[in-house]
Order: sequence, then structure tokens, then C-alpha cells
Amino acid sequence: MGKFIVIGERIHCISPAIREAMEKMDPAPILKRAKEQIDAGAAYLDVNIGPAEKTGADLMKWAVKLLQENFDNIPLSLDTANKKAIEAGISVYNRSRGKPVINSADAGDRISYIDLAAANGAIAIALCAKHGVPANNEERMSYCQEMLERGLGLGMEADDLWFDPLTLVIKGMQEKQVEMFEFIRQLKDMGLYSNCGISNASNGMPKPIRPIIDSVMISMAIGSGLNAAIVNPCDQRMMETIKSADIIMNQTLYADSYLEI
Amino acid sequence: MGKFIVIGERIHCISPAIREAMEKMDPAPILKRAKEQIDAGAAYLDVNIGPAEKTGADLMKWAVKLLQENFDNIPLSLDTANKKAIEAGISVYNRSRGKPVINSADAGDRISYIDLAAANGAIAIALCAKHGVPANNEERMSYCQEMLERGLGLGMEADDLWFDPLTLVIKGMQEKQVEMFEFIRQLKDMGLYSNCGISNASNGMPKPIRPIIDSVMISMAIGSGLNAAIVNPCDQRMMETIKSADIIMNQTLYADSYLEI
Repeated sequence: MGKFIVIGERIHCISPAIREAMEKMDPAPILKRAKEQIDAGAAYLDVNIGPAEKTGADLMKWAVKLLQENFDNIPLSLDTANKKAIEAGISVYNRSRGKPVINSADAGDRISYIDLAAANGAIAIALCAKHGVPANNEERMSYCQEMLERGLGLGMEADDLWFDPLTLVIKGMQEKQVEMFEFIRQLKDMGLYSNCGISNASNGMPKPIRPIIDSVMISMAIGSGLNAAIVNPCDQRMMETIKSADIIMNQTLYADSYLEI
Repeated sequence: MGKFIVIGERIHCISPAIREAMEKMDPAPILKRAKEQIDAGAAYLDVNIGPAEKTGADLMKWAVKLLQENFDNIPLSLDTANKKAIEAGISVYNRSRGKPVINSADAGDRISYIDLAAANGAIAIALCAKHGVPANNEERMSYCQEMLERGLGLGMEADDLWFDPLTLVIKGMQEKQVEMFEFIRQLKDMGLYSNCGISNASNGMPKPIRPIIDSVMISMAIGSGLNAAIVNPCDQRMMETIKSADIIMNQTLYADSYLEI
């Protein structure tokens, strides 16, 4: 897959400014946050509109067009529980710089998101979970196989499933972190792609600690073969870490200026 | 082995202040630098007196006594090409907090440092190299086996050999970094301990970049199973990273204050 893929997480309706902008279809706050993330090195932007049961389809169409028209068809990850909204977003999506990503399928209630990706020529983030937290890697792997078989059966390429090991919170599940890296290595050994929402690990920690823990988590994950992550690219330590990890893994060529690129 | 072992690298005759203090046997500069490193979290201190062909034995004895008497028998890594100096240092070494470490043996001209460790009940850092840079992990592993057999044959415990994969410089050998992490994993799978001089990777890079690259290197190495490293514990980013890695690897228990401990 080459260079590590950073999916910017900050266009998310959980942010009051973004929620308001989405309600009013006000471009400025969304464009501002998109630009910050792209400038910081995001290759994809995640667009999380929440459940958006009523207005989802129109909202996602609007957001996709807004972002792609203003940022040279930046590839997007469409993130909502509203499947119609995802289809609507994809109907206006420009693929010149990459397929749309659907965020996210799992092996339980969201298994049909694999079908949605297959029907729409999209990439699916595929959470290796079914009902809550998987007990171990054997369970993770069984869900991975389920989703892989379903996708392949529907004509998808294996590369279009980005398997997510499900990052667990350190406060409470400290002893479960090492397993996740092992799972990423297993995926890599099988030739499958992986994606993580890394910051869940540091949930509930004091704010100054989170970028530190997150940067060590992402280093270990990339060292284990992780291909992509949904992160905050405006976290400077995170992006310094990812760019350095790309150098160490020989995924980008070293230059003294590599942090500025 | 539990918690990651930080060996402080800053008592080194390459530093003009330390060289002068060693020449004059002036305690103050050495005690100052020892305290800084211990306060920052070093578990061992490396004492590098250089070749020290003439005065080595007296100098190492003096340094060992000085450091152990002032810092509660802090364990030390004795680092010199002068074998008599190492023996002299060990003759006055207090083992109450750990065996002395001999830095370092290799599978070539320095193979006799294994004998020295065996004869003196010491730990040996064992560089997996013979003549220059090993071409690949197969070569590294053959040197590891040579040194392991020699040590075991002389009655050493395998745990008292800390195998060092030999960190290579990124500027020039960028494509060789991933191999090192694989080698550390192989050592771990074999139940062997590992040690690294991590900062060699960032040699020749601009000064502000080095702590960033070094911290990602050490994260990936600890994630691969590294047990110990010779580093600058006064590099704040390095120590934040190592403490966080210990949390993620479940080697120390998480507390919100873990960075201050």
C-alpha cells in the first residue's frame, strides 16, 4: 500500500461547530477544518454526519461536493449509520484520487455495509467485532474471515476491505493492547490491509498525556504493519510520528526536510 | 524481564566535560551527570572511559566506587576496550541492585568479552556482528548463536547475554531498518533478551529531528520485544515514549501520573 494513510477525523458532528455548520449547511467551518487537516498531511477526510436519519442523504451529498470541489477531489471516508446517506454521498463522489471509503462495516448488525461497499465500488472499513469487544484474536480473525468471504463473494477485491482490529481503551483493558499489534501482524502476513481508530486507546486519560500515548500506539501499530488510521492530523506529535514511521518502514524516502513535506 | 531497562549513555569520554573529569579524577561533573540521568529514569548507567590503555584499571575502579557509593549501588554498564579496566571495575562492584554489564562483546575480535563476562559473573551486551555490518538477519542470527553457545559453554545463563541487533544508520541504510525489528522479534520468540543503541539510527540527521526519529525507533523496537537500550534519558521525548511503551506493553501498571514516576 506504500505510504501510511492518514484519515483526518475532525469533520465530525460531535464537534459543536461542525454540528451547527451541518445543520445550517454553512460551508465555512467545514472548509476551515478540512484545510487544516489537509495542510497537516491528511490523505483522506472522514465525514461523520451522525445518524442523520431525516436529512442524511442531502447533507452527505452537500458535504461530499463541498469538500471535493474545494480540495481537488480529496478522497473521503463516509461515516454514518444512515445507509441512504452513504449511497447519496457516493452518487456525487469523484473517484479521480481514490475510491470512497465506507466507515464502517462489522460482522454483526453492520455486515450489510460490506454489501453496500460491494454494490458501490467502495472501500469498506471492516471492524473485526460482532457483539461488543472481541475476547481475543481468534475471535477477531473469525469476524475478519466472515467479512472477507462476504466481500469476495460479492465481487470485491480483498484490498478494498480495510480490517480494523478495534482499538481498546488502555484504562480498563491495559493487558489487551499487545494482542492488537499481533493481530495487525497477522493481517499483514495474510496480505490484508488494516486500519485503526487509534485514539480510543487513550480515552479517559489526562489531556496532555493523550498525544504521547497515541504517538507510541501508532508507532507500534505501523511497526506491526498497519496501513491506515483515523486520527487527528492537527496533533503535531502524531503527524511527526507518522512521517517518521514512514521513513523507518522505508515507505517514503528520507530527506532532511521530511517533516515539512 | 518486566519493565524496559534504560541504560543512561551520558557518562562518556567523548564529552569534553566528562573526559576532563576522568583525566583529573574530579567527581563533580560525573556525579552531576549521573544524577540527571537517574532522576530522568535511568536504571543503569553506562561508564565509557574510552580505550584508557594506561590508566584504565584505576580509572574504572574509581568511577565504579564513586557512582555506586553516591547513588545507592546503581547498577553500571562498563564500557571500554581495556579488559583489565573492566576486571578492575568489577572487582569493586556492588551487586546488590544487579550484576555489572559488560559493554560489549561481538562475534569477532571481541568474542573474548563473553569469556570475561562468564569469568566475572557479569552480563554481556553481545553485538550480533563480526566484521562490520551484518548483511541480513541470517548473518545476525549466526553470530547470536555463536555467542550464545560460547557463553552457555562457559556456564553463563542465557539471560545474561543481551543480544544487540546493531542499529544501522537511516541515512544510507534506510531499507535495513525493518529487518532489525524482525530480528528483535526472533530473539524474543527464542526467549532471549535484547538491547539496542538506538540513536545510531538518526546519526547525521538535523538535531531537532533526532529525538523524533529516535522515539519512533524505540517505540517500534519495544513493540517488537526489545528489553533494554542505551539512550540519553535526559531526552524528554525519549523517556515519555519509553514510559508510555511500558504502559502499552503492560510492563508497568497505568496511573494518570505515570509520566512523573
